[in-house]
Amino acid sequence: MTSTAQTALDQLCDHARQTALLSSTLSLLEWDERTKLPSAGGDYRAEQIAYLAGLIHQRETDPKIGHWLDSLEGSPLAADRHSDDGTTVRQIRREYDKKTRLPQDLVEAIARTSVQSQQVWVEARRQKDYARFRPHLEVMIRLKREEAAALGYEDDPYDALLDEYEPDARTGQVAHVLGQLRDALQPLVQSIVDSGRTPNRSILERSFPRDRQEQFGRRLAEQIGFDFNEGRLDETVHPFCAGMGPRDTRITTRYEPFVASSIYTILHEAGHGIYDQQLRSEVYGLPPGNAVSLGIHESQSRMWENFVGRSRAFWEHWYGPLQEAFPDATSGVPLDDFYFLINDVHPSLIRVEADEATYNLHILVRFELEHDLIGGGLSVDDLPEAWNAKYEQLLGITPPDDAQGVLQDVHFSAGLFGYFPTYSLGNLYAAQIFEQAERDLGDLADMFRRGEFTPLRQWLGENIHQHGQRYTAAELVERITGKPLSHEPLMKYLRGKFAPLYGLK
Amino acid sequence: MTSTAQTALDQLCDHARQTALLSSTLSLLEWDERTKLPSAGGDYRAEQIAYLAGLIHQRETDPKIGHWLDSLEGSPLAADRHSDDGTTVRQIRREYDKKTRLPQDLVEAIARTSVQSQQVWVEARRQKDYARFRPHLEVMIRLKREEAAALGYEDDPYDALLDEYEPDARTGQVAHVLGQLRDALQPLVQSIVDSGRTPNRSILERSFPRDRQEQFGRRLAEQIGFDFNEGRLDETVHPFCAGMGPRDTRITTRYEPFVASSIYTILHEAGHGIYDQQLRSEVYGLPPGNAVSLGIHESQSRMWENFVGRSRAFWEHWYGPLQEAFPDATSGVPLDDFYFLINDVHPSLIRVEADEATYNLHILVRFELEHDLIGGGLSVDDLPEAWNAKYEQLLGITPPDDAQGVLQDVHFSAGLFGYFPTYSLGNLYAAQIFEQAERDLGDLADMFRRGEFTPLRQWLGENIHQHGQRYTAAELVERITGKPLSHEPLMKYLRGKFAPLYGLK
Repeated sequence: MTSTAQTALDQLCDHARQTALLSSTLSLLEWDERTKLPSAGGDYRAEQIAYLAGLIHQRETDPKIGHWLDSLEGSPLAADRHSDDGTTVRQIRREYDKKTRLPQDLVEAIARTSVQSQQVWVEARRQKDYARFRPHLEVMIRLKREEAAALGYEDDPYDALLDEYEPDARTGQVAHVLGQLRDALQPLVQSIVDSGRTPNRSILERSFPRDRQEQFGRRLAEQIGFDFNEGRLDETVHPFCAGMGPRDTRITTRYEPFVASSIYTILHEAGHGIYDQQLRSEVYGLPPGNAVSLGIHESQSRMWENFVGRSRAFWEHWYGPLQEAFPDATSGVPLDDFYFLINDVHPSLIRVEADEATYNLHILVRFELEHDLIGGGLSVDDLPEAWNAKYEQLLGITPPDDAQGVLQDVHFSAGLFGYFPTYSLGNLYAAQIFEQAERDLGDLADMFRRGEFTPLRQWLGENIHQHGQRYTAAELVERITGKPLSHEPLMKYLRGKFAPLYGLK
Repeated sequence: MTSTAQTALDQLCDHARQTALLSSTLSLLEWDERTKLPSAGGDYRAEQIAYLAGLIHQRETDPKIGHWLDSLEGSPLAADRHSDDGTTVRQIRREYDKKTRLPQDLVEAIARTSVQSQQVWVEARRQKDYARFRPHLEVMIRLKREEAAALGYEDDPYDALLDEYEPDARTGQVAHVLGQLRDALQPLVQSIVDSGRTPNRSILERSFPRDRQEQFGRRLAEQIGFDFNEGRLDETVHPFCAGMGPRDTRITTRYEPFVASSIYTILHEAGHGIYDQQLRSEVYGLPPGNAVSLGIHESQSRMWENFVGRSRAFWEHWYGPLQEAFPDATSGVPLDDFYFLINDVHPSLIRVEADEATYNLHILVRFELEHDLIGGGLSVDDLPEAWNAKYEQLLGITPPDDAQGVLQDVHFSAGLFGYFPTYSLGNLYAAQIFEQAERDLGDLADMFRRGEFTPLRQWLGENIHQHGQRYTAAELVERITGKPLSHEPLMKYLRGKFAPLYGLK
């Protein structure tokens, strides 16, 4: 019996590893498109990508997978759900069932609508014309409801969509913890606004040459542990991190006039990159070697970007080198001014430009609205008004037009419903995990002050990265911190940081 | 009847276009490996490449192709062998028969031996130790003879191997024209040596900053017609040109201290690139949209590199801009000195460093030896001695060791028997075609002097590139020039150029 199961397992793993050869090749096609592809090459690249995506889909829904899983489930090999083999069987079953439940014509309709809808969205945003985008959004929402119905769910159709990005999470739990975050965060942001304090922003006008920004960003990424023997840094319009293979992880950034933009983009993407680089390369392409969820992935990028990179201790180490790299631009700017500037909290209209406190309120707007859109409690006709009302309610500001309001993000047009909450889950995970790291490792600020980032990186490797998909995100957090996910560590961190800066309480 | 044939043709073309989606993706994997891949990523990249190569081989030997061809051959669709459809049927038949004749275990044995043998060759060359490489070469030659036997040939097993790189060429014809070239070239080179003249080489020691070399090289490539909207230039150790898709052609170079190295690498690779860019993109992946042979491809790179880029007229236009880009390095160097230096002819040991006159003698050494190795007239034991004797005979110099002799090129170790002659065929084609271009277009030197390269580029597009594989290389040359390939145009060009420089006759 075991021998049959072992054969099935070997075949299942070979199949998955071969599929990973294609998926990683697809990643290269996409990375190249966004960083190197000559402008005229886009149409053919789209054909290459569609063709490879089709081959991958065929392989992932191959009925052989079902047969192998059938002979494995119930076998001793898969008995321990947290072993490598148990994880492999459980997670491949999960993905296989989801993928085979979706009718091919629905998958294609969503892909087609997503391309069209994004094109219309770009134009609608340019013209500040929601009406133009409205019918496409309506179609997309109908298709995503069909997708949820095909995938199946217990109470809430949004569950089925959320599960794509944050596997095994449930809408109710997420709504609960994000609701508590909202209720605690709003008064904090209000008291920051009420303090009337603002940093000196004149340094924003100074010149930080692009080449030196890149050199400095590379030093930072290297210092926190991103391995350039197994990775690259390139320039792109919309920054991202792509794991391209077991020892090939590529991050990108863009360069704005003020250096903080590239510094925080690079730290953020390097945080993602370190996760990918510390996955177990010997099981690359199998569930024990894959990242667990978007939320946990985001917790890694957010931790290095904010908890480390926006800390005062970090800059006690790095401000000297920054001044050496940009002597003119930093002249006459004391560390405290710089530190306040990179922690400048103020309600604003655009999510991707938001500070680390108000950011989660931007997410809450989107999460609550898209939940209602999918559930049917909100119509696409009423969406812009509902959006503006939420901004007024949560951030105290109202968008002057839909380009700065409901049309600002690509997600709705691309059909990425269920994606937004993973950004805030990432912040919550980061806070709770960072708190535990400090408990385990001692005074992290003191390490950062000395430029020591290896202990934290290794701790994250051992506690998170090495596990791959062995545990769900929720299990992982509880296993590491002894508690289920809560808003309290993040609130404690934010209060601890911003109370002194803004003279609160 | 036609309707069945039309269906078969559509299916055959769809199949070929889909295979091209994979082949072009494979090109990206290879381009990336040679230009961007992080150092640790090589092992996995090799797996990705092997996997895609396997998928492509499966598709190219799919028995369905045989069935489609069977219903097409004899149909009116394929009646005109030079029409698009006729070309498609004829050329796919050609490739399908070749690929299906090779036993899978032989293909794998050659691939495996090639990897091992190249590794041993690198080490053997480093240690100047032919004995170490000898047994691997022996195995490779045995396998290549098996390959020739499996492919089939009339008189000469070398025919079957040559056909891989220069389709439809025959060893006898190639040996004849190269033999005539040898007999005419040797006395010319001898009289150049006897003249005792040499250029002033002191400029070689001056400094040409890398960034400005790149800028200057880009200007040159752009000016001769390489389209950067559909292409890129990157840095690499071993320069190459890769057609990555219908509107995506990438060239690479390396940067040496003296600027001529990057200038001529870029002009050479841009010459290849212009061929790829001027293929018909609407039939990309089908024989009418593919390049005809390595020899014709090389004729395009050699034409732009040598016939254009090493002409005095070219530098009458470009020497001013070169002096502006490198004022210190060119100071006190008159145009005539620079022109003589980039046309410095002298027998040397290393093929890739050879000038345009002696280069073909290096090729003749290799062609005659590898022909004998495959034919059985020369044993691997006697190869180094035979190599040195040929160098003494053809170039009047003897390698001091095998690293500068028989071990200098990768080709034998990689099993690329039949490849070398295409380099000289390229030079011969270039001369004969360039002569005709001048007949058709008028005084080309006068155009180059004015910086006008568009007429030549368009003429090449109309007469060569647009035809794809409609004609064989031999047919194409005869069609364009009205004569079969001959050594005379090249000899006339070389004498015309070098007689005044070296004060001959």
